[in-house]
Amino acid sequence: MKKQKISDAVIHRLPRYYRYLDDLYNKGVVRISSNSLGSRMDITASQIRQDLSCFGEFGQQGYGYNVAELRAEIGHILGIDNGHRIIVVGAGHLGHALLQNFDFEKVGFQIDSAFDVASSMIGTTIRGVTVRSMDELDEYVEQYHPDVAVLTVPQSVAQPLADRLIELGIRGFWNFTNVELSTQVSGVFFENVHFVDTLLTLSYRISRS
Amino acid sequence: MKKQKISDAVIHRLPRYYRYLDDLYNKGVVRISSNSLGSRMDITASQIRQDLSCFGEFGQQGYGYNVAELRAEIGHILGIDNGHRIIVVGAGHLGHALLQNFDFEKVGFQIDSAFDVASSMIGTTIRGVTVRSMDELDEYVEQYHPDVAVLTVPQSVAQPLADRLIELGIRGFWNFTNVELSTQVSGVFFENVHFVDTLLTLSYRISRS
Repeated sequence: MKKQKISDAVIHRLPRYYRYLDDLYNKGVVRISSNSLGSRMDITASQIRQDLSCFGEFGQQGYGYNVAELRAEIGHILGIDNGHRIIVVGAGHLGHALLQNFDFEKVGFQIDSAFDVASSMIGTTIRGVTVRSMDELDEYVEQYHPDVAVLTVPQSVAQPLADRLIELGIRGFWNFTNVELSTQVSGVFFENVHFVDTLLTLSYRISRS
Repeated sequence: MKKQKISDAVIHRLPRYYRYLDDLYNKGVVRISSNSLGSRMDITASQIRQDLSCFGEFGQQGYGYNVAELRAEIGHILGIDNGHRIIVVGAGHLGHALLQNFDFEKVGFQIDSAFDVASSMIGTTIRGVTVRSMDELDEYVEQYHPDVAVLTVPQSVAQPLADRLIELGIRGFWNFTNVELSTQVSGVFFENVHFVDTLLTLSYRISRS
């Protein structure tokens, strides 16, 4: 694999490639041309070829891409075979919805445990995952070393909680709090989920139609 | 305003522009150069100038952009001053979380009503929004003509429900079901929320670090 600086734009397209390839794979599609993949994804074939060239050589002139192979390769690039371990911090409605409906394992995450302050939640299980008290969080993280925390907590506690978890060794945050989190610690990553972006895109489209 | 075909890539960047400008505006920033905005957003200044040129002339050589003006202009382009009306269909955990935490009004949506099948939910209010029975949905839409439906329902009912709502005149779907919805009816738009993309980006980053 080539070593080069990969742009954020490319990185942000990788999950979309994976989603489309996974869908094709599940439909039993064996191969696909970059033209055909591009038209499904609404990007150009040359963009696809250029993006993928950052990571090595894929596809074959006149044949296109082998769907199963490319899906596996991109999955590998995305680290879905690394068995990252994840905890959900905040088991309110949003945390609960993720625990109940989101297929963490399908994208290689092992969901360990959830934490909440509400005594009514503590000790319950959501699709097999036990909700523990926030009082146990530090000890749990020190003992089991999860890689990633899903933050579905109130905004007011988001940054101090992240700071505490970073100190305990958490390296990635899937952040649903709408707070722009930051840290001085290197090697820590935040992915912020902005629901509003897709709603505004929809607003644009219906306004223009 | 120029009339031209705007690419999906530009359209998808508009909400991000709006978010960043809104943040600057709330912090009291009066003006910003395209360089400075670009470095915050991790895109190039020339990309910003090119994107904005699709919609008219903004900014001034040597001065940059007036934050309040550009925010208002992009908000206008996004249709946030159109007073779109929205309903939430499915008041389970995810629908509940959106009703409770998402600020629809901040981006110009008037939240009308929510609908669910669970008798325990019907008649309750979530942050002032009444949850009605799904049995009342058709009549409600016919009478009040909301523009957009948030779909937070089980996958199995997503497409038939969308078909029914399209027939009743709904033109936009903010789709959280992970089902790729489609329709033959023109002028109907789907925005699918894919939680998984940001988690996979995070997976990539922690795998590479």
